[in-house]
Amino acid sequence: MSLVFRVPPDVEVMQFLKRALAEAGLKSGFLIGLGSLKTARIAWYDQTNKKYIEKELEGGLEVASLTGNIALKDGEPFLHIHVVLGDREGRAYAGHLVSGISFHLEVMAIQSPRILERRYSEYHGLYIFE
Amino acid sequence: MSLVFRVPPDVEVMQFLKRALAEAGLKSGFLIGLGSLKTARIAWYDQTNKKYIEKELEGGLEVASLTGNIALKDGEPFLHIHVVLGDREGRAYAGHLVSGISFHLEVMAIQSPRILERRYSEYHGLYIFE
Amino acid sequence: MSLVFRVPPDVEVMQFLKRALAEAGLKSGFLIGLGSLKTARIAWYDQTNKKYIEKELEGGLEVASLTGNIALKDGEPFLHIHVVLGDREGRAYAGHLVSGISFHLEVMAIQSPRILERRYSEYHGLYIFE
Repeated sequence: MSLVFRVPPDVEVMQFLKRALAEAGLKSGFLIGLGSLKTARIAWYDQTNKKYIEKELEGGLEVASLTGNIALKDGEPFLHIHVVLGDREGRAYAGHLVSGISFHLEVMAIQSPRILERRYSEYHGLYIFE
Repeated sequence: MSLVFRVPPDVEVMQFLKRALAEAGLKSGFLIGLGSLKTARIAWYDQTNKKYIEKELEGGLEVASLTGNIALKDGEPFLHIHVVLGDREGRAYAGHLVSGISFHLEVMAIQSPRILERRYSEYHGLYIFE
Repeated sequence: MSLVFRVPPDVEVMQFLKRALAEAGLKSGFLIGLGSLKTARIAWYDQTNKKYIEKELEGGLEVASLTGNIALKDGEPFLHIHVVLGDREGRAYAGHLVSGISFHLEVMAIQSPRILERRYSEYHGLYIFE
């Protein structure tokens, strides 16, 4: 099963996609997408100190690539998305998507044949696939 | 249904993929791909003034990511592609693909379970999914 | 058919994915993924001189996009992957993945409906899809 979503303007993307996937009943799968954001907060994971370092981007951004997945974490759907964003000069920014305000996004979700579940990993300091 | 395409050298990528998808009868779906371009014209969408700002890239470019879709616009197939390109130093450029001359591209198209149609949105200044 | 893989820490990603796909019996298809690498060696293809120019990246990198495929080359599975990586400042690097040491990666493989085979192309100096 695959599904296609359009994200309307001025919504927070992570919240919107999480709700849209829940309404469609898709609990485990991968996402790809493209479009444009008004602002975005991306992050780089500090593997040594096990915490995200965040960066705020503004001024309108092409979403040149959106790759993510939905899985269960403590029984609840958990969305994980990475993006590559482009600015006015075509410069690219890449990272984990913390949050973003949409201008317009087009997303396809591809269901996983098996249920994906996350469990806490001491090593990573993150919830990872079982 | 999914399809795999190879783009031969020295063709304009948007035109080639549009024709290849039409010949395969795939009218609604998403595309992913990778490869290498000789030159590319990418763009950033100015959300305020509702127009694309273009940038020309030359000298050979890795297509590190190609994400796109095919949908109907006024009954005709319309291709929408975003790319992330890498230059000799590994620097990345990201944006909307206006046009590109191929060296070699490998693309998979994944059909959408429903027909995707675009309609003009005054808000965006673009044709977006219904 | 689609499959989901998790790449554990401290393995060489190309070797690991090649083995995981072989064990799953998936010989022809595309891959998408996201995660984080400890180090990576990416490359840009010099189309004129037909050789890869490599670049080493360190210090922990977000895998903002991973796009690739698996195909047969001389009867053996051959993995081809491009990535977009992000550093601490959110700067993006893009290219062909030569090798990488994992922190954590999440990958989906989508099987191709037809067997993909590569053959040497004099023009490209590369093995490309038939």
